[in-house]
Amino acid sequence: MKAEIVSIGTEILLGDILDTNSNYIASRLPGLGIDLYYTSQIGDNRARLADLLRRGWERSDLILCSGGLGPTEDDVTREAICEVLEEEPRIDPALEDELRAFFARRGSQMPERNLKQAWLTPSTRAIPNPRGTAPGWWSEKHGKIIIAMPGPPGEMQRMWEKEVAPELERRSDAIIVSRTIKTSGLGEGTVDEMISPLLKSTNPSIGVYAKPDGIHLRLTSKAATREEAARLIEPLEEAVERILGGVIWGHDDETFEVAVGRMLRERGLTIATMESATGGLLASTITDAPGSSNYMVGGLVAYATEQKIAWGVPREVIDEHGVISVETARAMAAAARRQCGSDIGVGITGVAGPDPQDDKAPGTMHVAVDSGDGGDSMSYTYNQSRDHNKRRAVANALQLVRRTLLAAR
Amino acid sequence: MKAEIVSIGTEILLGDILDTNSNYIASRLPGLGIDLYYTSQIGDNRARLADLLRRGWERSDLILCSGGLGPTEDDVTREAICEVLEEEPRIDPALEDELRAFFARRGSQMPERNLKQAWLTPSTRAIPNPRGTAPGWWSEKHGKIIIAMPGPPGEMQRMWEKEVAPELERRSDAIIVSRTIKTSGLGEGTVDEMISPLLKSTNPSIGVYAKPDGIHLRLTSKAATREEAARLIEPLEEAVERILGGVIWGHDDETFEVAVGRMLRERGLTIATMESATGGLLASTITDAPGSSNYMVGGLVAYATEQKIAWGVPREVIDEHGVISVETARAMAAAARRQCGSDIGVGITGVAGPDPQDDKAPGTMHVAVDSGDGGDSMSYTYNQSRDHNKRRAVANALQLVRRTLLAAR
Repeated sequence: MKAEIVSIGTEILLGDILDTNSNYIASRLPGLGIDLYYTSQIGDNRARLADLLRRGWERSDLILCSGGLGPTEDDVTREAICEVLEEEPRIDPALEDELRAFFARRGSQMPERNLKQAWLTPSTRAIPNPRGTAPGWWSEKHGKIIIAMPGPPGEMQRMWEKEVAPELERRSDAIIVSRTIKTSGLGEGTVDEMISPLLKSTNPSIGVYAKPDGIHLRLTSKAATREEAARLIEPLEEAVERILGGVIWGHDDETFEVAVGRMLRERGLTIATMESATGGLLASTITDAPGSSNYMVGGLVAYATEQKIAWGVPREVIDEHGVISVETARAMAAAARRQCGSDIGVGITGVAGPDPQDDKAPGTMHVAVDSGDGGDSMSYTYNQSRDHNKRRAVANALQLVRRTLLAAR
Repeated sequence: MKAEIVSIGTEILLGDILDTNSNYIASRLPGLGIDLYYTSQIGDNRARLADLLRRGWERSDLILCSGGLGPTEDDVTREAICEVLEEEPRIDPALEDELRAFFARRGSQMPERNLKQAWLTPSTRAIPNPRGTAPGWWSEKHGKIIIAMPGPPGEMQRMWEKEVAPELERRSDAIIVSRTIKTSGLGEGTVDEMISPLLKSTNPSIGVYAKPDGIHLRLTSKAATREEAARLIEPLEEAVERILGGVIWGHDDETFEVAVGRMLRERGLTIATMESATGGLLASTITDAPGSSNYMVGGLVAYATEQKIAWGVPREVIDEHGVISVETARAMAAAARRQCGSDIGVGITGVAGPDPQDDKAPGTMHVAVDSGDGGDSMSYTYNQSRDHNKRRAVANALQLVRRTLLAAR
């Protein structure tokens, strides 16, 4: 099935909002065996939209729209679709009742202009939208489909997941299932070499991708049903797990902080941090994982040198090696453990940039982990923006915690 | 001038990368007096791209492309433009020399397939790209322009800023200058009412927008030159500053943390934080401002209750009012000051979510500032995602610091 995506809204063309709906939908089409050839953004202009939809109607089997379903005169998606279908809209009594009930529940009367949200045409059925007043439209004629969803991402995504994707999946004769396996600690080339006997497989197939949090492997299979596709992928996944074992830290949408948090929980260990260059971003990232209060005791942002000393970094270490040194990072990790009484301590010192500090180049980072009976550290200089430098150091600190936990196993 | 944007790359259609180039370019066109009617994304397919460009050639005056300028066979932007121009590419000797020199500087020989990056056509001139091997293309024929820029945002943005935008500005007969004034502490309706006498002005015009960090006013003027447009805006800006005075915290791209940092610096004051629900995000945000080491002493992430007590929050306060209370937030602010010896202390406690805690709803937040001789606080419940809840609390804490600094003036 050939598809195209159309996002509707003048704010997109003004650059005031970024069209994330297209990306959301695009990323989900391969799984349904649907090929995407075009995506476009267009303003709230009925003639131009109708023109674009007519063109899509000729070249594609499926047009996926979002936006322009509001009650105002600017919202012209329904009108444009009517032009393409060559049909007149009529008010659907059941939809009208629902709409009036929606407003009544909020204690207000429905403005009459909202009535067009109760429109349907002979080739159109409504797609439920419990999150808003605008139902979607599923129009089907001459073997072609136009689906119109609301613009707000929360409404669109729910409609996609609960209503549109399941129906498209039912009609698809080729479902694609994919599974992402996330690793860290090995380079892309090494991973590629280790799994090279598996790379020949075509269904399921396997791809290797370098990402900021390590090397990801994407396993993909294609079959008539989801169950069959999942069955195809299983032996390949097991083979990958056998080969890569300990370097795998997570699957699919799992983040590093959630994976590390799970390891800490499983081992019954607690963690604490002392940060300088990252200014609290490591603590904030660790606590991005729901339930992190089970293992995160506390964090210290020792931005000033005297503050590091006040919180237990020996003055001699700083005097001898400098504030920006791996020795200071190690002392910070140890001090974090002591200050918070945790099992694991993490220390980060460095130069976030953009300017050098103490003659050290921006992007210089020292990260250390202390686990009481041992420790680990890494030092590097890699300068991008201040924001990137902070994020990279946090990712590396989480990697180091993981390595320490594995080594202690 | 009527423009359209075309982003080229199969990864966009697969949903693997989000097309941010379109948004970047779109947001800059109004300032050049250029109207944007269409943006599209298309894969690395020569026939489909040529077709799309031909259509743009008919309906628009200016086509702004990004992507597809690499050296591989998949990179077909040059080929497709040649089709539209009906011209044959030839290798430009000067560009070829530059390209070979680029590789020589890296100690490698240029692969022969890179040679097409030295192509030009009779209607095309090269646009310099010091960040990569692919120069841009500026093609002009029959009064129409096609501009092709590289896909990587860093290369594209530099080329836009340094090469493309200045040339488009020279040709434009209507430059639009805009200035954003950022306020906090007043609602949209109140700001609107206060400046209502100014709202009638059309050139310059003024718009009021509610944003996460407060109410923004966007002043916009249109004139033949940048200087004239800037001159037009000045008296309006002065009028706004007179009316809104102290509620203005910044201009244009300035962030709240930079604005608050500047106030701290001007007053010679230092700051420290103690966070629970936000887990270090406030400290990290404060230190996102370059030069924050001048006023940020340190931060404490007191995630566990016992850790709060260990760092100076009186046990009685927690016993009496609970961990999630405004009294505990105040005690945390005071404790942060004492622990770090700073002038100002900030405390945040609450429920980041998604689950309730101590019978308090997710999104419940208490934020407090302590300045030694006084303080301020705010409490609210507003639940979105965990990430949003944290961000909102950080924004409110910075607002509170600003309010405290202004009150102490």
